[in-house]
Amino acid sequence: MAKEKKLVESITSMSEDFAQWYTDVVTKAELVDYSGVRGCMIIRPLGYAIWENIQKELDARFKATGVENVYMPMFIPESLLQKEKDHVEGFAPEVAWVTQGGLETLPERLCVRPTSETLFCDFYKRIIQSHRDLPKCYNQWCSVVRWEKTTRPFLRSAEFLWQEGHTAHATAEEAEARTIQMLNVYADFCEDVLAIPVIKGRKTDKEKFAGAEATYTIEALMHDGKALQSGTSHNFGDGFARAFGIQYSDNNNVLQYVHQTSWGMSTRIIGAIIMVHGDDSGLVLPPRIAPTQAVVIPIQQRKEGVLEKAAEVKEALAKAGIRVKLDDSDKSPGWKFSEQEMRGIPVRIELGPKDIEAGQAVIVRRDTREKIETSLETLAETVQEVLATMQSDMLARAKHHLETHISEAHDYEEFKDAVANKPGFVKAMWCGDVECEKKIKDDTTATSRCMPFEQEDISPVCVCCGRPAKKLVYWGKAY
Amino acid sequence: MAKEKKLVESITSMSEDFAQWYTDVVTKAELVDYSGVRGCMIIRPLGYAIWENIQKELDARFKATGVENVYMPMFIPESLLQKEKDHVEGFAPEVAWVTQGGLETLPERLCVRPTSETLFCDFYKRIIQSHRDLPKCYNQWCSVVRWEKTTRPFLRSAEFLWQEGHTAHATAEEAEARTIQMLNVYADFCEDVLAIPVIKGRKTDKEKFAGAEATYTIEALMHDGKALQSGTSHNFGDGFARAFGIQYSDNNNVLQYVHQTSWGMSTRIIGAIIMVHGDDSGLVLPPRIAPTQAVVIPIQQRKEGVLEKAAEVKEALAKAGIRVKLDDSDKSPGWKFSEQEMRGIPVRIELGPKDIEAGQAVIVRRDTREKIETSLETLAETVQEVLATMQSDMLARAKHHLETHISEAHDYEEFKDAVANKPGFVKAMWCGDVECEKKIKDDTTATSRCMPFEQEDISPVCVCCGRPAKKLVYWGKAY
Repeated sequence: MAKEKKLVESITSMSEDFAQWYTDVVTKAELVDYSGVRGCMIIRPLGYAIWENIQKELDARFKATGVENVYMPMFIPESLLQKEKDHVEGFAPEVAWVTQGGLETLPERLCVRPTSETLFCDFYKRIIQSHRDLPKCYNQWCSVVRWEKTTRPFLRSAEFLWQEGHTAHATAEEAEARTIQMLNVYADFCEDVLAIPVIKGRKTDKEKFAGAEATYTIEALMHDGKALQSGTSHNFGDGFARAFGIQYSDNNNVLQYVHQTSWGMSTRIIGAIIMVHGDDSGLVLPPRIAPTQAVVIPIQQRKEGVLEKAAEVKEALAKAGIRVKLDDSDKSPGWKFSEQEMRGIPVRIELGPKDIEAGQAVIVRRDTREKIETSLETLAETVQEVLATMQSDMLARAKHHLETHISEAHDYEEFKDAVANKPGFVKAMWCGDVECEKKIKDDTTATSRCMPFEQEDISPVCVCCGRPAKKLVYWGKAY
Repeated sequence: MAKEKKLVESITSMSEDFAQWYTDVVTKAELVDYSGVRGCMIIRPLGYAIWENIQKELDARFKATGVENVYMPMFIPESLLQKEKDHVEGFAPEVAWVTQGGLETLPERLCVRPTSETLFCDFYKRIIQSHRDLPKCYNQWCSVVRWEKTTRPFLRSAEFLWQEGHTAHATAEEAEARTIQMLNVYADFCEDVLAIPVIKGRKTDKEKFAGAEATYTIEALMHDGKALQSGTSHNFGDGFARAFGIQYSDNNNVLQYVHQTSWGMSTRIIGAIIMVHGDDSGLVLPPRIAPTQAVVIPIQQRKEGVLEKAAEVKEALAKAGIRVKLDDSDKSPGWKFSEQEMRGIPVRIELGPKDIEAGQAVIVRRDTREKIETSLETLAETVQEVLATMQSDMLARAKHHLETHISEAHDYEEFKDAVANKPGFVKAMWCGDVECEKKIKDDTTATSRCMPFEQEDISPVCVCCGRPAKKLVYWGKAY
């Protein structure tokens, strides 16, 4: 019996089951496939092409700030991981251990990196001697492993791809400035390129990175009202430097400890693109990140001249710098439309015999389904305009969604009601005590997402315990 | 006591000790650093920037042939690795095994990928159904681990970076065509971009990839006369497809096995760049791959106007598309020259007060040390020309070195003498028997590098056993 490829299948609607909708989209848009290895995903061509575009954009922004790329080993000896106490406590329970090399049992276990602070510290200790060697601003693109119990494609997987920047500075001020600078790089990238607005803020001590003095975060809001931590930037102060002995001689030949930062963004952000912009027909990709921005779909392509004209149109668009494909397969136009929608290609260009005769084509926007009849003569300019409009409309819609999904709570009843019934962030004051954070999580499943940079004073008391409030916190259920 | 950075140190000369020269160059040019993990290297900014340029060039060439990038898990379950008999025999003795995840012992060991044929096969089995799904031409950029006993930076390390392409085709002819196509991509890349001429040919059965029907290779000749296998392309026939059950339904709805290929190039090629082009002052980078193509070095930079003019010159060169830096550090010009030479920057541009007054600068070529006085007005064009000339001169020199280091042997005495006394390849006829290959290796340490595509008939008999000859083989000592 011959195997036949199945038709494009319908996906579960968002309103019916958001989690199932997500799973349907990532698999049916062919972003990922499940592998035989527990919790590890295969990133398919469309998923990887999105990641390549993310890499290209971020890498250029990093380099513009003086960052250089390096590559560190993927293995960390157990003794090295243990050098910083908080760090090892945070990561040891969730790492994969290599115990055998070839046919031999290793004298010391190696963990597959869950993150590379310890390796960078060991390296910096060797290469930093004088203040002339500072700052060091290194980054690497790699995969890391965290042995998670429950996994979901992009959002939480045993192995994922990311970049991790690690910097060393002469002063605490410089380290703090770099930490904030990189958080802003992430926030601007999300807004400008991914059309995803974010809340910037600082994590509470409970939620900060293992070993950090301060962790800053950008938090995005998904379509279902849950938050997604989308990028983090950590200031380590001189904690790691003291644990590893990373010192430099200053202008007066006095030995000083360096101050360090690290910051990362991962393939998780692809989950954000899906859950912020997607709809019941599949992916909707912001034009700036879309691997294919436009697809030309010929109508009645067997009629004389249609395919030739379609190829010509495709070439003209490519020449204008648009990432464009021609779908001249023998599938029906309807099927091609479904595929374009499922895969989130920002615009399709329909071109049939009548269009050709009239010297026009029909542009259809993926996000609004708006149809735009346009002259073939000015097609490239019009497509460019439509793509630009779509990009800014998508950001505006995502901003509107964020702004209309932030509620305020002044007492605990109001807070519990908001978490239960109003999807989105809940703004509420906090006393600073970790016990209140724990109680809130136990009672509502909401966690403190961040203490936003833009602080407000909406109540004098903590929403949980009623003692004097110290900080405004954004709370929410999160991925 | 303050630590002070040491002066640029001299490196061992090539003629004195080539192996030590290599080690000195990779460390003192700051390409790599040793890590605390046995056999794993840290790739430093200069080394990684060269790899990024290699990636950019190769990736564009792959994509031009229809290749798409993906990412597969880094772990392979033991049972999956075992599916193809020859493959597991070849790789199992040299892999690293993960046996613990978090706090649990895993039910099945996972190996850290030494190569990913088995994962791609498992994936292809699931996604290939019909002839419409073919060909599949996927590639991934990743790191792989082979638990080698003896390691050297770039040439042989426990972990290294590479790309691995894996394709599936409907017919044996298509698979063979793709295998040769990718070998040619590698060969052209080496010659055009790295200025490294290569010998193209087929590996003997003894030297082929574990599980392949045929392995093709490009072999480059290092400065010391030893060969370096620089890229390989394998035709698997339908061997893996049968082991994994990868079938498609053809035009007549009959199930057929796919035919597969794989091909790879790794950070090892950076070792070739060093050993083909380097000299006693350090690296010499071909301009097309050099991360920095030109460095502007001001002379008497404290004199008024020198630094300003140097910055202006640098800007003008950058605008012309040259990858240029300005070294305005407080080091002496002599020290800057040494650093430029050590790091292999193709040209330096010396600019002092007298030059500025005369409206000129001095370009110094890294490879020949030739000094070219040139007007500042036409500096960018001249630098472009010098870079282009240097690129083609470097290729011509490497070609000359290759051509003058190929000897012929017609009998075994001549052969042993050539291997012992004439660095380079030795051409000799071979009967096709693996026993002769083994004897030659035992007697001389030379191995069969390849059966070149350009076959000649230099003797009717095997150089080792005297029986009728079947193939001309290039033999040589190799890295």
